[in-house]
Amino acid sequence: MAEASVSPTPLLKDELDIVIPTIRNLDFLEMWRPFFQPYHLIIVQDGDPSRTINVPEGFDYELYNRNDINRILGPKASCISFKDSACRCFGYMVSKKKYIYTIDDDCFVAKDPSGKEINALEQHIKNLLTPSTPFFFNTLYDPYRDGADFVRGYPFSLREGAPTAVSHGLWLNIPDYDAPTQLVKPRERNTRYVDAVLTIPKGTLFPLCGMNLGFNRELIGPAMYFGLMGDGQPIGRYDDMWAGWCTKVICDHMGWGVKTGLPYIWHSKASNPFVNLKKEYNGIYWQEELIPFFQSVTLLKECTTVQKCYIELSKQVKAKLGKIDPYFLKLADAMVTWIEAWDELNPSGADSAEIPNGAAK
Amino acid sequence: MAEASVSPTPLLKDELDIVIPTIRNLDFLEMWRPFFQPYHLIIVQDGDPSRTINVPEGFDYELYNRNDINRILGPKASCISFKDSACRCFGYMVSKKKYIYTIDDDCFVAKDPSGKEINALEQHIKNLLTPSTPFFFNTLYDPYRDGADFVRGYPFSLREGAPTAVSHGLWLNIPDYDAPTQLVKPRERNTRYVDAVLTIPKGTLFPLCGMNLGFNRELIGPAMYFGLMGDGQPIGRYDDMWAGWCTKVICDHMGWGVKTGLPYIWHSKASNPFVNLKKEYNGIYWQEELIPFFQSVTLLKECTTVQKCYIELSKQVKAKLGKIDPYFLKLADAMVTWIEAWDELNPSGADSAEIPNGAAK
Repeated sequence: MAEASVSPTPLLKDELDIVIPTIRNLDFLEMWRPFFQPYHLIIVQDGDPSRTINVPEGFDYELYNRNDINRILGPKASCISFKDSACRCFGYMVSKKKYIYTIDDDCFVAKDPSGKEINALEQHIKNLLTPSTPFFFNTLYDPYRDGADFVRGYPFSLREGAPTAVSHGLWLNIPDYDAPTQLVKPRERNTRYVDAVLTIPKGTLFPLCGMNLGFNRELIGPAMYFGLMGDGQPIGRYDDMWAGWCTKVICDHMGWGVKTGLPYIWHSKASNPFVNLKKEYNGIYWQEELIPFFQSVTLLKECTTVQKCYIELSKQVKAKLGKIDPYFLKLADAMVTWIEAWDELNPSGADSAEIPNGAAK
Repeated sequence: MAEASVSPTPLLKDELDIVIPTIRNLDFLEMWRPFFQPYHLIIVQDGDPSRTINVPEGFDYELYNRNDINRILGPKASCISFKDSACRCFGYMVSKKKYIYTIDDDCFVAKDPSGKEINALEQHIKNLLTPSTPFFFNTLYDPYRDGADFVRGYPFSLREGAPTAVSHGLWLNIPDYDAPTQLVKPRERNTRYVDAVLTIPKGTLFPLCGMNLGFNRELIGPAMYFGLMGDGQPIGRYDDMWAGWCTKVICDHMGWGVKTGLPYIWHSKASNPFVNLKKEYNGIYWQEELIPFFQSVTLLKECTTVQKCYIELSKQVKAKLGKIDPYFLKLADAMVTWIEAWDELNPSGADSAEIPNGAAK
């Protein structure tokens, strides 16, 4: 079953965009140059539009600041967060490529245990091009990897796998902890390199981190909305979590897979835990109700496209989460605006995304 | 959250039995001596009772052959397989300890990537003594391990975890493949050391391999029945699979966790794929119906003990799987006999296992 990964990984040069929310760090692109230079970059500036971002020579990029977002989306620009890295999802929307890789500017190239620099993008591409196994757990992890397969007792009818929609990569050095854990364990570093890629089973939710994330935009793009965070909102640092919960329930419905594990990047600096606490405290409280909500969401058979799933989800958010806080009424409206904007910028995509979801039950 | 693993791992010398199905290999116990000698061994001889098993000096053990099983269980001995390593489950039944570790006699001590010998038993004990996380996936794997924790977005109400019922260990060198995969990939070896322990999420089934397995006998023992295999049966090599599917749905119902990953043992030799094919062919076919059955099993709230769950499961096996083959009618009866025999040998256990299953829904 490992045939798929025997041949060299295709670069997908013309099929993948790299989306980066603001580049504050001058070293960032230089460090990634050998890996990123073949690709087109979409940089979305989260704050003051008058600030200049210096992109080093040799990179092919487009840059959007708030003025650009307002100009392109008009009143629908309200669904894109301001002064928050959640604005990156605007990049997913304007891309015309099949795949997206998004990375934070404090993430550097990590090394594997042999000391070799990890080509994170190549691993994400491998993850996205090979199937997932959401319906049954394989104890030797990814069965499509070289030197691995399905173990005894794995039903043969499930060995074809499912299309992979999301590849969630991890972080060495600074782990992705919430503010309370940062405060309690300020010195904890992630030094454990776990040499595995695995599919998160159908029906299981997980915390998706947007620091080092690949996805198939043609499949799941319209659900990868990072919500309303930052300026004027009562919550921050839940942009990627929101996207993760929404995409996971939609992938489960559509019969697509979500992988986590390799590749690692090197997360260089911890954000300020006091600032984070202020951003997170509502989310930490609200997520106790959000998780049971997402665990019990059901999407009807009529939801045959990601757009239809997402609109249905927005209705359930309004009906069931609105009572937690008026913020969720606003968020539910923004989810609808996001889909309208997506379909406006991706008119053909709106049709082509009509995929028969035989796996949806 | 890693406090639990900071102190040295307790040996559980008086609380754990090691169960081994026949020892054909003289080197086996010598190799494990530094790790196993503090423990009591229960050896269950699978074949000819007149054959002598030589246990090296210094080990504390009891040995049961078929005559012993017949004498102890009387007519109920019919539920214990003959001429098949599935007979090992008799050892789980006669043990009086809280924990069981079971291992095959072709499994040797493996080495970690640093070259250090792996104390598999110690890792199983760690896995069993720390909680599981079946209700939400943690992307940094086991949050109770040194240097790890729950990541951002993991609900705080779920961080206490759930009691761990099963610790499923893996194998370096010869992977646990079915006969068709063995035949297609005779030279494949598992060389990848994945440094992770993870909880298999609630609602997800997996192929449990009995080669290197720890469990909490007080919690899940009565469900760890290895079925009817070998002599006189139309199927082999599905003993551990059957136990895995039954224990997983019961653990899910009771709110307990099942872990997989570390520790590794060194699986020294591949069994004959032609012989395996003969044993497996029915199972390979039948499992296509068994998996959907186990995926849709529901246990009612009234099933408050593992025994009650297991009896209920046996009824559903009879009702729903009997039509596949009369073998399942016989197996369903044997499941009932197994529970009767278990309760006879463990009279107090039958009461003490009445645990309020608040997590069962």
